[in-house]
Amino acid sequence: MTATPREEKHQATRQRLERNAVSLVLEHGFDRVTVDMICEASGISQRTFFNYFKTKEAAVVGAEPPKIDEGKARAFIAADGPDLLAEVLELVAACSMTGGSDEKLLTDRLRLFETDPRLLLKQMDRMNRITADVGDLIYLRRRREAGPDGDEAELRDQADLLTHAILGVLRYTAMRWIRNEGKDQAETLASTSQLLRRTLRTL
Amino acid sequence: MTATPREEKHQATRQRLERNAVSLVLEHGFDRVTVDMICEASGISQRTFFNYFKTKEAAVVGAEPPKIDEGKARAFIAADGPDLLAEVLELVAACSMTGGSDEKLLTDRLRLFETDPRLLLKQMDRMNRITADVGDLIYLRRRREAGPDGDEAELRDQADLLTHAILGVLRYTAMRWIRNEGKDQAETLASTSQLLRRTLRTL
Repeated sequence: MTATPREEKHQATRQRLERNAVSLVLEHGFDRVTVDMICEASGISQRTFFNYFKTKEAAVVGAEPPKIDEGKARAFIAADGPDLLAEVLELVAACSMTGGSDEKLLTDRLRLFETDPRLLLKQMDRMNRITADVGDLIYLRRRREAGPDGDEAELRDQADLLTHAILGVLRYTAMRWIRNEGKDQAETLASTSQLLRRTLRTL
Repeated sequence: MTATPREEKHQATRQRLERNAVSLVLEHGFDRVTVDMICEASGISQRTFFNYFKTKEAAVVGAEPPKIDEGKARAFIAADGPDLLAEVLELVAACSMTGGSDEKLLTDRLRLFETDPRLLLKQMDRMNRITADVGDLIYLRRRREAGPDGDEAELRDQADLLTHAILGVLRYTAMRWIRNEGKDQAETLASTSQLLRRTLRTL
């Protein structure tokens, strides 16, 4: 699906609002930022703001709950890649990057979650759906690879365990994003995958 | 160090208070439980309560912050075990089991953290120290194994990555504790370690 010009304009406005909301909260703290302040910084009316977001919080944590791209999810299940972990990391990282390729927005949000417990909880809640989703995807991929003789319960347990471990690795990746280190997100992700592979070799 | 009879009595009282605090909060919710209620259930005075805990919250999440046992930590650094991951899991699991071998207390607490976001945050904060500690231990163990030619930065990165992945696995283990499945904690831990090993073999 290609976005219409109208959709593109909406998307741009939403992103501008999210960016300003996050910047203001980083500067002043969540409680001191009002919807009015976000509107003023973005040059739009309150009425327009509430067309995009139900609450101030929604503008700060993001309008859309993170969601694994359906097309990528299907491709993942069907793929025969040699590096399952790297593929999963990429799948999950992509969906925590709502706001498209706006790296500053993502990094600023991660920084917010580090400093504001309430926003962290909100984000954890949003991520919980992803956890279940990732578990299912890994299970389906490995069940396909195992063929008809695969042990269902064992495959399910392995998928759950891997999901939890990978979310831990994703948290490590997020820390590196925040520290920045002069690398963009794709580079950080690739270098984490390589580090993961080298580390596994030693276990 | 062997505990004196007096210390043993203190320990028992503390544990009784923690158990009652957790049970009451599970039943009524954190806000509806008062220190008076905990004291009444435990048959002690408010004055005695405040000898043990500064706040109601401290009785609920635990008096002592979780801490890796210093003796076990040293043994871990010096050990040549074949299964680093299982050893780390055991090390961290042991310290989340404050309250000694009181499995019900630990499981009830984990259940509380699942349902009350504020308590979860408190617990995450307590666990953050452990994260740094585990990273150091893994680094020291692997640096020792790598000898003088080990690449410091690489060893440090690998240790950090492993720490995050292992805390994810610990979270998986905690979920299984909560679901119980008729196994005690040592069994759950051992079966998670075995599952982890089987899973790694497939990667």
